[in-house]
Amino acid sequence: MPIDLSAVGKKLDSTTHTYTERDVMLYALGVGCGTSDLQFTYERDLKVLPTFAVIPAFPAMLNLGGAMEVNPAMVLHGEQRIELGGPIPTSGTVVTTPTIKAVYDKGKAAVVVVETESVDGKGKHLFRATSSIFVRGEGGFGGDRGPSGPRNVPPDRKPDQSISYTTLPQQALVYRLSGDMNPLHADPDFAMMGGFDRPILHGLCSYGLAGRAVLAAFCGNDPTCLKSFEVRFAGVVFPGETLTTDLWQVAPGKIVLTARTERGPALAEAAAEVTG
Amino acid sequence: MPIDLSAVGKKLDSTTHTYTERDVMLYALGVGCGTSDLQFTYERDLKVLPTFAVIPAFPAMLNLGGAMEVNPAMVLHGEQRIELGGPIPTSGTVVTTPTIKAVYDKGKAAVVVVETESVDGKGKHLFRATSSIFVRGEGGFGGDRGPSGPRNVPPDRKPDQSISYTTLPQQALVYRLSGDMNPLHADPDFAMMGGFDRPILHGLCSYGLAGRAVLAAFCGNDPTCLKSFEVRFAGVVFPGETLTTDLWQVAPGKIVLTARTERGPALAEAAAEVTG
Repeated sequence: MPIDLSAVGKKLDSTTHTYTERDVMLYALGVGCGTSDLQFTYERDLKVLPTFAVIPAFPAMLNLGGAMEVNPAMVLHGEQRIELGGPIPTSGTVVTTPTIKAVYDKGKAAVVVVETESVDGKGKHLFRATSSIFVRGEGGFGGDRGPSGPRNVPPDRKPDQSISYTTLPQQALVYRLSGDMNPLHADPDFAMMGGFDRPILHGLCSYGLAGRAVLAAFCGNDPTCLKSFEVRFAGVVFPGETLTTDLWQVAPGKIVLTARTERGPALAEAAAEVTG
Repeated sequence: MPIDLSAVGKKLDSTTHTYTERDVMLYALGVGCGTSDLQFTYERDLKVLPTFAVIPAFPAMLNLGGAMEVNPAMVLHGEQRIELGGPIPTSGTVVTTPTIKAVYDKGKAAVVVVETESVDGKGKHLFRATSSIFVRGEGGFGGDRGPSGPRNVPPDRKPDQSISYTTLPQQALVYRLSGDMNPLHADPDFAMMGGFDRPILHGLCSYGLAGRAVLAAFCGNDPTCLKSFEVRFAGVVFPGETLTTDLWQVAPGKIVLTARTERGPALAEAAAEVTG
């Protein structure tokens, strides 16, 4: 059986990711930044969007830290969290070490929780990322079901702020050049086989858009103000759709949010911690 | 004096440019391709837009082949021509050798004509590019004025085809990641100093858009059908504007074209040679 419980808790092989300012700007364009976001899209006084943290962590997430072999076609990205240790450098080398934190048995599916810790070339902590991966067909091994029940539930009032970003028809084609080349996001035939009318936007692209909404709403667009950001992927976004992020401040520095398209929910049970 | 006539006719130092499929797709997105152009924007059966030829040639054009030192703020791109030797590989190494073909004295400005020849890593000919660079303030040295009078004049009839592409507001921010990082195309302050209300699109981005129009109109989008493509840069394009290319077939395989925005001419005296 591909799900290997003995891997839980062990640090796995590190990966090294080297990137340039060009990669940082391309990521920002990939999550919809443009001429109104020159601090993220132009090299003068360039800053790095905090959600860029998912890019070096992505390969470890994709192969479940290298700990177990699963069929990529059976894998769904369930949840994503990042914790920032400070501003992300505009270029450099990032060494990422994954740990399988948990494997839950949801019956039909297994959920594998991969945590990655990333340091710079000198070993200085940069950020931590946690991905929950649904592996369809791998449940039923008699394991723990894991935590359940909704988290980060919005209060029963209108959002304090709502921020809409309309994605480009070619948004996924730009985003994928940051590293997630899954044809599901580009190839109409492949998308059809996956049960979609047309290619879908990357969940982590929506994640970047919602992260931008947090920065705009509560951080004066200062990327260092975001301390953590977690979401559950709740629905598909098609390139060209408008993602509207509804945000509630529920405590000092604590934001709860959801995001939706014209058709329905995209991100749920989402929260951000910010300074100030 | 920075203009050095002794350089004319000499082969200058070669430059080496290595690129990947990602660079090819990013270039296509930079010249406005999207989900309707997957052969140029997605790695399955990827093809290279013929105007990609200007990318490896660009550094040689920018520094006039390294033959003479001029103030970059005084330099304008006047004309561009490419001649294709066959399909451009989707990745690889290109070695480009520049030659200063001519230096003309236009009175207030000098015009430097740089021809580059590009070969692959094994020395096989790929393409030739010719750029005419206006160097303001460097004329008046008593040299030849060079050829004059309009070339590639459209016939006195309505265009056989007109093709419009609307650029993105962030088009220049995407295009510049292919190598021309001149802040004129990103930085509002810098653009203002250059006499523009806001950053302008790269001339070579418009060149790519018009090249796509030729492919669409006369080549069934087969990039190998384009043999040569030359334009004179006749006016500024702002990101977000629509570039309309008017095309006339004037002889078998010979296309004359112009391109315009909502405000006026962008490309003039333009021509393409196509097969079939």
